[in-house]
Amino acid sequence: MTTLVGPSEDDPAQSLIDSGFALEIADAGLLHVPLTLADLAHVLDLSGHGVIPGDAAARLLRLLLEVHDLPAERFPYDSHVGDPYNCRERYFIERIGDDAGWLHAGRPRREAARVALRLLLRDQLVELIDAAATFADQVARVAGDHVETYMSDQTYLQQAQPSTFGHYLVSFAYTGLRDVERLFSCLDWVNQSPGGAGCVNGSRLITDRRTVADLLGFDDVIENTRDAMWQVDGLIDLLATVASLVSQESKLAEDLEIWDSREFGYVDLAGPYTRASVLMPQKRNPYSLAIVRGAGGVLIGRLAGFLAVIKTPSARSDNLIYAQGEVPRAVDLALRVTRLMGEVVATLRVDAGRMLEELERGFSQATDLAEFIMLECGLNYRTAYLLVGRTVRTASQRGLCGVDITGAMVDAAAEQLLGHGLGLAGRDLSEALDPRAIVRTRIAAGGAAPELTRQMSVSCRSQAASSQRRIEARAHAFRGAELKLLRLAKESAGE
Amino acid sequence: MTTLVGPSEDDPAQSLIDSGFALEIADAGLLHVPLTLADLAHVLDLSGHGVIPGDAAARLLRLLLEVHDLPAERFPYDSHVGDPYNCRERYFIERIGDDAGWLHAGRPRREAARVALRLLLRDQLVELIDAAATFADQVARVAGDHVETYMSDQTYLQQAQPSTFGHYLVSFAYTGLRDVERLFSCLDWVNQSPGGAGCVNGSRLITDRRTVADLLGFDDVIENTRDAMWQVDGLIDLLATVASLVSQESKLAEDLEIWDSREFGYVDLAGPYTRASVLMPQKRNPYSLAIVRGAGGVLIGRLAGFLAVIKTPSARSDNLIYAQGEVPRAVDLALRVTRLMGEVVATLRVDAGRMLEELERGFSQATDLAEFIMLECGLNYRTAYLLVGRTVRTASQRGLCGVDITGAMVDAAAEQLLGHGLGLAGRDLSEALDPRAIVRTRIAAGGAAPELTRQMSVSCRSQAASSQRRIEARAHAFRGAELKLLRLAKESAGE
Amino acid sequence: MTTLVGPSEDDPAQSLIDSGFALEIADAGLLHVPLTLADLAHVLDLSGHGVIPGDAAARLLRLLLEVHDLPAERFPYDSHVGDPYNCRERYFIERIGDDAGWLHAGRPRREAARVALRLLLRDQLVELIDAAATFADQVARVAGDHVETYMSDQTYLQQAQPSTFGHYLVSFAYTGLRDVERLFSCLDWVNQSPGGAGCVNGSRLITDRRTVADLLGFDDVIENTRDAMWQVDGLIDLLATVASLVSQESKLAEDLEIWDSREFGYVDLAGPYTRASVLMPQKRNPYSLAIVRGAGGVLIGRLAGFLAVIKTPSARSDNLIYAQGEVPRAVDLALRVTRLMGEVVATLRVDAGRMLEELERGFSQATDLAEFIMLECGLNYRTAYLLVGRTVRTASQRGLCGVDITGAMVDAAAEQLLGHGLGLAGRDLSEALDPRAIVRTRIAAGGAAPELTRQMSVSCRSQAASSQRRIEARAHAFRGAELKLLRLAKESAGE
Amino acid sequence: MTTLVGPSEDDPAQSLIDSGFALEIADAGLLHVPLTLADLAHVLDLSGHGVIPGDAAARLLRLLLEVHDLPAERFPYDSHVGDPYNCRERYFIERIGDDAGWLHAGRPRREAARVALRLLLRDQLVELIDAAATFADQVARVAGDHVETYMSDQTYLQQAQPSTFGHYLVSFAYTGLRDVERLFSCLDWVNQSPGGAGCVNGSRLITDRRTVADLLGFDDVIENTRDAMWQVDGLIDLLATVASLVSQESKLAEDLEIWDSREFGYVDLAGPYTRASVLMPQKRNPYSLAIVRGAGGVLIGRLAGFLAVIKTPSARSDNLIYAQGEVPRAVDLALRVTRLMGEVVATLRVDAGRMLEELERGFSQATDLAEFIMLECGLNYRTAYLLVGRTVRTASQRGLCGVDITGAMVDAAAEQLLGHGLGLAGRDLSEALDPRAIVRTRIAAGGAAPELTRQMSVSCRSQAASSQRRIEARAHAFRGAELKLLRLAKESAGE
Repeated sequence: MTTLVGPSEDDPAQSLIDSGFALEIADAGLLHVPLTLADLAHVLDLSGHGVIPGDAAARLLRLLLEVHDLPAERFPYDSHVGDPYNCRERYFIERIGDDAGWLHAGRPRREAARVALRLLLRDQLVELIDAAATFADQVARVAGDHVETYMSDQTYLQQAQPSTFGHYLVSFAYTGLRDVERLFSCLDWVNQSPGGAGCVNGSRLITDRRTVADLLGFDDVIENTRDAMWQVDGLIDLLATVASLVSQESKLAEDLEIWDSREFGYVDLAGPYTRASVLMPQKRNPYSLAIVRGAGGVLIGRLAGFLAVIKTPSARSDNLIYAQGEVPRAVDLALRVTRLMGEVVATLRVDAGRMLEELERGFSQATDLAEFIMLECGLNYRTAYLLVGRTVRTASQRGLCGVDITGAMVDAAAEQLLGHGLGLAGRDLSEALDPRAIVRTRIAAGGAAPELTRQMSVSCRSQAASSQRRIEARAHAFRGAELKLLRLAKESAGE
Repeated sequence: MTTLVGPSEDDPAQSLIDSGFALEIADAGLLHVPLTLADLAHVLDLSGHGVIPGDAAARLLRLLLEVHDLPAERFPYDSHVGDPYNCRERYFIERIGDDAGWLHAGRPRREAARVALRLLLRDQLVELIDAAATFADQVARVAGDHVETYMSDQTYLQQAQPSTFGHYLVSFAYTGLRDVERLFSCLDWVNQSPGGAGCVNGSRLITDRRTVADLLGFDDVIENTRDAMWQVDGLIDLLATVASLVSQESKLAEDLEIWDSREFGYVDLAGPYTRASVLMPQKRNPYSLAIVRGAGGVLIGRLAGFLAVIKTPSARSDNLIYAQGEVPRAVDLALRVTRLMGEVVATLRVDAGRMLEELERGFSQATDLAEFIMLECGLNYRTAYLLVGRTVRTASQRGLCGVDITGAMVDAAAEQLLGHGLGLAGRDLSEALDPRAIVRTRIAAGGAAPELTRQMSVSCRSQAASSQRRIEARAHAFRGAELKLLRLAKESAGE
Repeated sequence: MTTLVGPSEDDPAQSLIDSGFALEIADAGLLHVPLTLADLAHVLDLSGHGVIPGDAAARLLRLLLEVHDLPAERFPYDSHVGDPYNCRERYFIERIGDDAGWLHAGRPRREAARVALRLLLRDQLVELIDAAATFADQVARVAGDHVETYMSDQTYLQQAQPSTFGHYLVSFAYTGLRDVERLFSCLDWVNQSPGGAGCVNGSRLITDRRTVADLLGFDDVIENTRDAMWQVDGLIDLLATVASLVSQESKLAEDLEIWDSREFGYVDLAGPYTRASVLMPQKRNPYSLAIVRGAGGVLIGRLAGFLAVIKTPSARSDNLIYAQGEVPRAVDLALRVTRLMGEVVATLRVDAGRMLEELERGFSQATDLAEFIMLECGLNYRTAYLLVGRTVRTASQRGLCGVDITGAMVDAAAEQLLGHGLGLAGRDLSEALDPRAIVRTRIAAGGAAPELTRQMSVSCRSQAASSQRRIEARAHAFRGAELKLLRLAKESAGE
Repeated sequence: MTTLVGPSEDDPAQSLIDSGFALEIADAGLLHVPLTLADLAHVLDLSGHGVIPGDAAARLLRLLLEVHDLPAERFPYDSHVGDPYNCRERYFIERIGDDAGWLHAGRPRREAARVALRLLLRDQLVELIDAAATFADQVARVAGDHVETYMSDQTYLQQAQPSTFGHYLVSFAYTGLRDVERLFSCLDWVNQSPGGAGCVNGSRLITDRRTVADLLGFDDVIENTRDAMWQVDGLIDLLATVASLVSQESKLAEDLEIWDSREFGYVDLAGPYTRASVLMPQKRNPYSLAIVRGAGGVLIGRLAGFLAVIKTPSARSDNLIYAQGEVPRAVDLALRVTRLMGEVVATLRVDAGRMLEELERGFSQATDLAEFIMLECGLNYRTAYLLVGRTVRTASQRGLCGVDITGAMVDAAAEQLLGHGLGLAGRDLSEALDPRAIVRTRIAAGGAAPELTRQMSVSCRSQAASSQRRIEARAHAFRGAELKLLRLAKESAGE
C-alpha cells in the first residue's frame, strides 16, 4: 500500500463538517476583520517585492478592502465549504478568478490565522486593560469615601479586628492593578509579528519580515519562525491572568453577597444590578454577583482546558484551532464581568451604621486589649492573651460586648489565672477598647488608619489613571497603523 | 439605612445586559422547546386542579402550542428584556394580557429552567448514547476484519510483543461500552422530575408532583424539593463521562496520527476525513484527528470549570445559570466528535504489509524466546531474560532481526553469562520467534489469538447493538410522552 | 546509526532518580502490601501450573509472606535502586538468589502494579463508602431533630420562603447517598482482575486468568488483555465521584461558615472542630469548614490533572505511574474530610431561636400571601405578585415585618395598582403570613412540612444503613479472600 | 443561645487531627527553616522597639537559633498538638516557659506563614530559574550542533517542508527563555514582605514595616496590609508559569518519544535516561519522557486545583493553608523534570542519516517547487499549487520521491490541467527540489538556514547565561541577608 500524497479529491464527510468545520466557522466572525488586515499586509508585502504582478495585486487589494467593510454576517462563511480560510479562498476566486491565487504564495493558512488572532487579542486587551484599570479606580474611589466607615475585618467570617470598609475595599485595587500590569505584559507578547514564517522554516519569497510587522503595527518580529508559528505560552499567560483578575472580582462578589443578606445588612446593590424573582414578590436578588462569581469558575475551566488542549506533541494544529475560539471568548467574558463588577462597586449602597453596630456588639478589640495589658503590666503576650480570652468569654456569657469590658473584669480573670490582680480596676480602657481609637493606631505603612487608607486610595487611583493613559496611547498607535495600512492598500489598489 | 425589599424599579444596567442577560439569552435557543413543554405541563397541572380558570388556561395553552411550533430564532428573545424567561413572560403578556399572569403561580423561573434543562439533556443523551454505541460497533467491526493483521504492540511507542491490529482496536470497544453504561446511568439521573418543588420547599398549590412528571415522561419525581432544585451531582457525572468517552477517542486519534505518518505508514485516513494545506501541495492532513484530540482537551476544561462554578455555598443561582450553556454544549461537542471518530475508524485504510514488515524487523519476540528458554532449559526467568537481552543486543549490533536469532547465538550468550552453553544450537526456534506463531499462543481469555479477538469483536458488537435497542426504546417513550402532552394540551385548549 | 536494543548498562542519571524514581518510591508505602499479595497470587498460579519448580516456589512464597508482615518503612525501598518493583526485585535476589528470578515469568512490572492499585483502591473504597454513608446518616439524623426548627430558605443568600433547618439539611443526605451509589459502581470497576494479561496481548504461560482473579477475591476477569492493562475510565469515574461527594460537603461547609458568623448566629461548631487564633483572644475559628472547602478545591485539580495526564496516545506508562500516587491520595483526602464533615454536623449547635427571629423579621411569606390573594380574589398570579410586591415595599419602608401585614395594607396597594381595593381589610391573614403555618402547607412529596421531613430523615437513614451493610459484606469477602490467599501460600510454602 | 467567644477548651477531634492538622504537619518540613527565620526577624524587630524585654528576647533568639540548626525531622511536629505553628509554640514554652509568650505579640500565625512561604518560594525560584535557563542553554547548544542536520519539519506529523533538527530544537530555547522572564517576574512578586501586617489592618506594636523586610532580604514591603495577608495572584502566576514551562518540555518529550520509535529511528535517549522492562528483554524504554509528560499533566491539575481552592470569599484561611503544600510541591516537581529534560536533550543521540533518509523519501519540497513554477512561469500560486499537487500524486503512485521529479513530469501535469505544457522539460530543478538547497534559502530573520540557526543558538545561549548570572546575583543577596540576620540574632542573643 502506498502512502497517499496530495489533497484528497473527496468532499469532506458530513461528520467533519459538523465538527471541525462548524467549530472553526463559529469563530469566523471574530477573525473576519483581522484576517482581512493580515491578507492586505501580505499582498502589499508580496507585491512590493514584485512577487505578485501589479494589476493582480491591485485587484486583490480592491477586493480585500471591500471585504474589510463587509460585516462578517454578510460574508459567505459556510462550514460546507470548509473553515473560514477556505470560504474566503472560494469567495475570492468567485470574485476575481485566478488573480486570487496569488494570495497564498509564501504563506500557509496557519500564518494568516496566527496574525489574525494576535490582532484580535490586541484589540481585546486594549478594552480589558482599560476595564480592569477602571475597576481598580472605581474600587479605590469608593474606598476613599469610606476611610471612616468602621467595620470589623473578618477571617473565617468571624470578627477579627476593627477596621474600615475603605481599608477592606482598597485592597482589591492593589490586586487589580497588579493584574493590569500582567495584562500589559500579555499585550507585549501579543503584539509581536509571526508574519513571514512561511510554513515554519521561513519562505524563499519573504526576505524581510519587518515589512508585514510594520504594516500591522506590531512592536517586533518573533525571531524563530517555528516558534512564531506555534508558541502558546503567551496564551497560557493571558488566560491565567484573566482567571486571576476575575477570581479577585469573584471574591469581592462573594463578600458582597454575604453582606447583602438581611442578616448582615451591610450593603445593598443598586437596583440596575439586581434581578427580581418571578415567583417571590419580596425578592431583590444580587444577580450581578452570581454572574461574576460564575464567570470566575468558567474561566478556571477555560484555562485548564486550554492547557489540556496544548498537551500534545509540538506543532499540532488543534492547539491553535481551539485557541481561536477559546481564548478570545474567555477574554471577552472577563471584559464583560469586569465592567459589571466595577459598576456594582461604584453604585453600592453601604450601611455604615449597621457595620458599626455589629462592630460594637462584638469583641474585635480583644487583641488590642491584650497588647495594652502586655505593655502596661509587663506580661508576655501569651499570658495577656489567655487573660483576655477568659475575660471576653465571661463578658460574653454575661451578655456584654467588648466595649463594656472594665479593668475590674480583667483583674478578676487575672486573679483566677495568675492568682493576683493587675491593678487595672478603675483604669480607663477606652483607648484599647474603642474600635475607632484602635483603627487610628494602625499608622504603619498600609494600615487601616483613615489617613493611610485615604493615601492608598489616591495612590491607586493615580496608578489606574496612568494605566489608562498608557493603554490609550497603545490603542491610538494600533488604530494609526491600521488606518495607514488601509490607506496604503487603497493607494496600491489605485483607489 | 433600610434593607431594600421587592423588585427594583430601575432598568437593568447596560453592563448587566451585556454580561448576565446576554449570556442567558445565548442559551435561549437550546431551551426554547423544552421550556415550552415545561410550561405546557405546568399549566395543565394547575388547571387540572382548578387553580387557573378554564378559559385563561385555554388561552395560555393555545399560545404555548403556537410558541412550540415557532423556531427559537423567530421568538423575540432579547437581552434588553432580561433572560429567556423574562422574554417569554413579556411576550405572553403582549399576546394575551393578564391571562399570562397565571403561568407563574406556584413555580419559580428556576423550576422551569431545571425541568427544561433535563428535557434537553435527555434528548442529547439519546443521541450521544446511540453515537457512542455506534462508535463501539464500528471499532469492533473493523477489529474483526483485522484479527490476523499482525503488528507489534507498543509501550512507550517501543515494540513490545507481537499482536494484531484487531486486538489493539477492539480494546477501544470495551472502554466505549463501559462509558455507554455510564451514560445510561446519567440518563437515569436526568430523567427525574424536579417539577412541583415550588421555590424550594414545595408549594401549597401543588398537591401531587407526579402529574407534571408523568406529563413530561419523567421516570420518577426527585423526592426532596430542595435537592430537586439544586442538585448538580448528575451534571458532574455527565461531564466526567463525556470527558472520559472523548479521552479514549483522543487516545485512538493520537495513535492513528502517529501511524499515519510517512515514517510509520501503518494507516491512512480516508479522503473525506482529511484536509489539504493551502500552501503545501503534497499535504493531506489528518485534520479529523486533531479535531477529536482538541475536543478531548476542551472537555477536560468544561468539567473542571463546571466543578469550579459549583464551588459555592448551596443554592446559588450561578450553578445552574452557567450549567445551562456549559453542559449541553459540552455534550454536543462530544456527540459531534464521537460520530466523527467512529467514521474515521470505519473508513480507515490499514496497511497490513507495512505493519508486518516492522514487526519482522524488530525484536518483539524476545519475551517468548526467554520463556521458551526458561521452559526448555529449566532456567529461572530472570536468567533467561538476561540471556536473551544479551542475545538481542548482539544480534541488533550485527544488523539482524529477531527472526534471525539462532540457538547458537543464544548458546554464545549463555557461554558468556553462565559460563556454559544450553545446547540450543541447531534447535528450531521458529515457534518462539515467529510473531504469528506467538500470537496464536495467546489463547487465555482476552488474548490476541485470532479466534479470541474475533469472539471479542462479535461480543462487543452484540453489546453495542443491545445498547442501541435500549436507547431507541427510551427515545420512543420520550417521544410518546411528548406527543401525548401536546395532544392533551390541544384538547384542553379546545383545539 | 543503529537503534539501541535491550536494557542500558548505564546507571540511571541522578536527575532521573530525583524525578521518576523518587516519585514512584514515594508511593511505595501505599502499594507495599498490595504488591506482595499480587506476587503471592502470581507465584501460586505459576507454580500450580508447574512453571516454577516446587522448591523455588516455596522459597519465594516464604519470602513474600515475610515481606507481607514487614512494614513498608522497614523495606529497603530506595530511589537509587529504581522504582518500588526494582527495589523488591533487588531485595528478593539478595535474599534467595536465582530463585527470585522465577517471579517475573509471564508478568510485566506493569501488571503487578495494576493489580496492586486495584487492591489498594478496593480497601480505600470500603472505607470511603462507609464514611460517605455515615455522613448521610449523620446529616439525616440531625435533620430529623430539626423538622420544626423554622428558618427561611435562602437563594442568593436572600430570604426566599419559610422552611426548616431539617428540610435544608436532609437534602445533603440525598446527594450523599447518590454518590454512595456511584462509589459502589466504582468498586465494581475496581474489583475486576487485570491479572494474566502478560505484557498486553496475553501470555503463553497463563492459561486460565480466573486463577489469579479468584486468589485475590476479584469479582471477575477484565476480558481484553490490552484493556486490562491500560484502562483508566474507572479512575476518572472514581475521581469525579470523589470530587462530587466533597463538593457537596464543601457547599454545606460554606453555608455553615456563613451561619456561624456573629451576624447570622444560626449555628456554632462544637469546640473540637474549631481552632483558636494565636493572636486574637476572642477568636474561635471554624477551621474544620475551611479544611473541607479547601479539599473540595484540591480534588477538582486532582481530577483535572489526571485527565490531563491521560491525554496521551494509548498505552503510555505515565498514565498509570502518576495514577498510583494521585488517585489513592485523592481518595484518602476525600475520606478524611468526609469523616470530619459528618462529625461537624453531628455535633453542631443550632440556634433555633435565632433562626426564627430572622424568619419573623423578614418577608419570606410574600409568595404565600400572593397565592392567597390569587386564590381568594381570583386575580392572576402576576397581578397578585405585583400587589404584594408593592405591599411589602411599603411595609418595609415603614419598618414593619412580613407578619405585620394587614388586609388593609394590601387593599391600599390594590387601590394604587388596580384602582380598587380587594375587600381584604379586616381579614385574618395569619394562615398566609405565619411562617410555621406556611411550612405546614408543604405536604406534597418531599416538601418542608415537618412530617414529610421526618419521613425523609427516616428513609435516608434506612438507605444509609443498608449501604453500610452492603459495604461491610463486601469488605468481609475481601478480607476472606486475602486470608485464604495467605493460608494457601503458607501451605504451599510448607509452613 | 449565645454565640461562643474565645478559644474552645476541648481537645481537637481525631477526625480533625487526621485531616486539617495532619495536612498542615505534612508541610512542616518545607516551612521549618523559613518559619524560624521569620520568627527571628520578628523577635529582633519587637525587641529593637523595646516591646520584648531584653533577656526574654535573648532567650527566645537563642532558642530560635538552635531550632534553625535542628533538622525538621527531629523537631517535634505532631498533628495531635495542632499545626506546625502550634507545635512550635508548645515546644518553645516547654523549653523556655513564659518568655516564649512574647513571640506572638503583634503577629498572627498567618503572618508568620505568609512570610515563611515567600522565603521558601524564593529559594525554590532561584533553583527553578537556574534550571530553566540551563534547560534553554542545553537545548540551544545541541541545536547549534545540528544546524545542518536536515530533516523534514512536520505538521500533523506529516512532512511539511525541509528544515533542520537545529532549527526545530532552538525554538524550545525561545519558549524556555520567555518562561524564565516570567519566573523573574514571579520572583519580584514573591520577594515582597507581608511582615508587619498585624492581623490584617496593621498593628499598634509595629511602627516601621521596613525593619522586618530588610532583615529578611525582601525587596520591598507590600503596602496594603490586608492585601499583604491575603494576596494569591502571584501564586496563580507562578503555578501558571510553571505549567507553561513544563508544558513545553512535555511537547518536546512527546516529539522525542515518537522519534525514538524504531519506525522513526531519529533519536535515541542515552542509557541513564531509559529504563529496562522487567519482562521484555529487548526493551529500552524512554522512561524519562513519560515522567516529564506526566508531570505536565499533573501541573495542569495543580493550577486548576489552586484556582478552585481560592474560589471563596476573600480572606479565607483555606486559600493559604492549601497553598503552603500545593504550590511548593508543584514548583519542586517542575524543578525536577526541568533538570531531567535538559539532560535528556544534552545527551541525546541524533541519527542525522535516518532523518535525511526520510527527508529524501518524501515530498516536502513541493511548496518550493510550486514557488519556483510561480516565479519562473508567471503562474499565480494557486495554479502552481494545483499543478504540483497533481505532479506529486502521480510521482508517488509511481513509487518516486520528491527529488525524482522532472520538468517533464510537471509539464505533463500542466498539459492535463491547463491544456498546455510550461516548457520545463529538461530544466534543472535541483535548486527547488534539493532539500538542503531549500533550507539554504530560508535566510529571512529566524529562518532555517544554517547560519541563522547558528546565530539563534548563540543568542539564546547568551541570554541563558545572562539569566543565570542575574539569578545567581539574586541568590547571593538572599544568602547575604540570611547570614546577616543570623549574625544579628546571635549578637542580640549575646552569643
